Amino acid sequence: MTSAPTKEILALNRFDATRTEGFPEELAERVKRRSATFGASSVLFYEQPIEMVRAEGAYMYGADGTRYLDVYNNVPSVGHCHPRVVAAIAKQAGVINIHTRYLNRMVETYSERLLQTFPAELSNLAMTCTGSESNDLAMRIARIATGAEGFIVTETAYHGNTALVTEISPSALKKRKPAAFVRTVPAPAGDDQADVAGTFAAHVRTAIDDLEASGVGVAALIVDSIFSSDGIYADPAGFLAPAIEAVRAAGGLFIADEVQPGFGRTGGMWGFARHNLVPDIVTMGKPMGNGFPMGGVVTRPDYLTRFCEETGYFNTFGGNPVAAAAGLAVLDVIADEGLAENAGSVGGYFAGQLRELKARHAAIGEVRGAGLFIGLDFVSLEDGAPDTALATHVINEMKKKGILIGAAGKYGATLKIRPPLCFSKGDADYFVEALSAILGHR
Amino acid sequence: MTSAPTKEILALNRFDATRTEGFPEELAERVKRRSATFGASSVLFYEQPIEMVRAEGAYMYGADGTRYLDVYNNVPSVGHCHPRVVAAIAKQAGVINIHTRYLNRMVETYSERLLQTFPAELSNLAMTCTGSESNDLAMRIARIATGAEGFIVTETAYHGNTALVTEISPSALKKRKPAAFVRTVPAPAGDDQADVAGTFAAHVRTAIDDLEASGVGVAALIVDSIFSSDGIYADPAGFLAPAIEAVRAAGGLFIADEVQPGFGRTGGMWGFARHNLVPDIVTMGKPMGNGFPMGGVVTRPDYLTRFCEETGYFNTFGGNPVAAAAGLAVLDVIADEGLAENAGSVGGYFAGQLRELKARHAAIGEVRGAGLFIGLDFVSLEDGAPDTALATHVINEMKKKGILIGAAGKYGATLKIRPPLCFSKGDADYFVEALSAILGHR
Repeated sequence: MTSAPTKEILALNRFDATRTEGFPEELAERVKRRSATFGASSVLFYEQPIEMVRAEGAYMYGADGTRYLDVYNNVPSVGHCHPRVVAAIAKQAGVINIHTRYLNRMVETYSERLLQTFPAELSNLAMTCTGSESNDLAMRIARIATGAEGFIVTETAYHGNTALVTEISPSALKKRKPAAFVRTVPAPAGDDQADVAGTFAAHVRTAIDDLEASGVGVAALIVDSIFSSDGIYADPAGFLAPAIEAVRAAGGLFIADEVQPGFGRTGGMWGFARHNLVPDIVTMGKPMGNGFPMGGVVTRPDYLTRFCEETGYFNTFGGNPVAAAAGLAVLDVIADEGLAENAGSVGGYFAGQLRELKARHAAIGEVRGAGLFIGLDFVSLEDGAPDTALATHVINEMKKKGILIGAAGKYGATLKIRPPLCFSKGDADYFVEALSAILGHR
Repeated sequence: MTSAPTKEILALNRFDATRTEGFPEELAERVKRRSATFGASSVLFYEQPIEMVRAEGAYMYGADGTRYLDVYNNVPSVGHCHPRVVAAIAKQAGVINIHTRYLNRMVETYSERLLQTFPAELSNLAMTCTGSESNDLAMRIARIATGAEGFIVTETAYHGNTALVTEISPSALKKRKPAAFVRTVPAPAGDDQADVAGTFAAHVRTAIDDLEASGVGVAALIVDSIFSSDGIYADPAGFLAPAIEAVRAAGGLFIADEVQPGFGRTGGMWGFARHNLVPDIVTMGKPMGNGFPMGGVVTRPDYLTRFCEETGYFNTFGGNPVAAAAGLAVLDVIADEGLAENAGSVGGYFAGQLRELKARHAAIGEVRGAGLFIGLDFVSLEDGAPDTALATHVINEMKKKGILIGAAGKYGATLKIRPPLCFSKGDADYFVEALSAILGHR
């Protein structure tokens, strides 16, 4: 991966704190106060940031009363402020909220219910607070299980923010390459005729050989099973299998990062299930508590045992009863409201409408995805190259039409379409109409 | 540090899953279910674990109706299920709960209020979800600020659970020593006549020399400002200054880990303030949201800027409005209920009563601490050596008297007394009477 495209993605749709001329006085003051506290760690969306005051279902509301359709957020996955999740948090927070060194029925119920959604081999759960903590733990479990140190990731991957996980997140590194124990492979992209499975497996085999030649060996291939940061690559379902076979033949594990595709987004509960395989380790985060900070690692008991023999792992907030209550409400809502099915049907409809739009707009390249996670490429009318500038333009114009949307991919030229799972066909229609109007003659 | 004492601490007061004979049938079943899900990562307290069903103020309630005085928990620091914190969480969770890429008044208000409690130089805040994430980030900020890689920690330190932070947490490593970039120094222990400041600084200087000789240099000295895991060392206030002067002279930073002493526990807002110095980085966690998962890093703007120039750091849940609401309620409750003052006065009374007890029981060695964080050593009647077995006995007997308490220190022979800050003199009296009865003639 070259560093230039990554920088573009980081800058894309990012507010520039030095450009507040023309802002309403109060907004300028608010932005100044925010910069004074969060400093360089402050990242705000849009050329003119939005103050959000309220949210419900698939909608957020700005301080000026503007209603925004949220096509960006995969955290409040069952809908912003879902009343059942809010009630579960409120009730449990008032009863008891402690660590996992005492028995607690809420925590036991949740862990059993969550594990029922996984293949039987994956019968142990370690609770964390974030997807980053989950991947950090998974990497260490894999290292101890294999005795190897190396990891293979895609070249625009993002797996989290701890020191270790940042090394396998090339898209977060602004000035340098990942550490020596990391090898990157191109995203599993390809047109309809391409051998996606074979090409991806070939890249992974090269990475395995390189890791073995350098003496670190392969601890694991870790991928987000829908390749979110790379630009969303879902098809053909099953394409991951040969690459994972190669990794296992070399003694490595497969870690499925379900932080983004998990909990119903792709139309089924887990993204890896589309590939008809059982990972060695699964990591979870973002949508797990619909915004309540929680994450988890699911794996085989022998792997967890070997890790715990070496390291005394304890996570103070991990597996607290309030998180369990939030997580349980999320599982209940997904089931009771048929949200995975909704993601499948509305997502299928949405992708179909976007493909029809592609027939009318040459600036739209490929439309791909699964369920309510869709990638839409913008391409130059001249040479078909990724059109990052158009993606940025669309994102800012969509805001004016009350739609929140972001970009992904190596060049930031792919619209990352991942709304809450309660998204409706009417919401999809509104999005498609707005996009068509913005593209105009393009 | 030898590995044997650490293993003892890890095992101390830990339920052995192979020993369920004689358990009531339902408890045996519950423990079995728990082991089947959490596997090796399940750590339960006590020879016979407790199921907790409710908590309020300084008390927790077991499933059998037993009331327990909580002298262990520093997370629900303003009191279990404090109604103002619960109400703040419930209200905000129903309004909006998003990431920090939009402006939100709750988040801005909290960050400004929190920063007002710090020295003016420390004007930037990065929000995380846990103390572990905070220390992981702080270590990277220190490395980039100094260009050095090495860290100095105390030999029984615990700073968190990520891969990087585990390396500076010797007490979590079961089978090996910390990484090559880490040097450990003995805890700042000493009797009344000892030169604690001089001795600690001398150890730190040796570690600096060793890090420099090995070419990694010193990025930071990181200490919990009350040395919780080492056995609680607070006096004489100010003893840290010469060690920090030495670290700064070598180009390193001082990271104050306030995850345990912070938010009023030592009688003032921050543990480092007792040492009359300004850290370069401060990390926060546990009590920050009274159990709502949140953490933070406070530092100088130039350090944060330099880190952000290298790494695109984003924390999905960090700084969400529900965390901000919980954190704001915690700050309000600490102020309105005078909890730092209560920690000072009740803690002072408590320590005084424990010292009177020491005069009557030869098995009690030193009693030390600040505010509501007190360490009490058990010593052998024969030779005055640390008496780990007695500490374990006391912990289990205290449970029978309805008191929850844990141990700390290199030998696990120190009672770690750190109740919620709403602890009363009556609670302290109850504890002292129970301890006296358990010690009997010892």
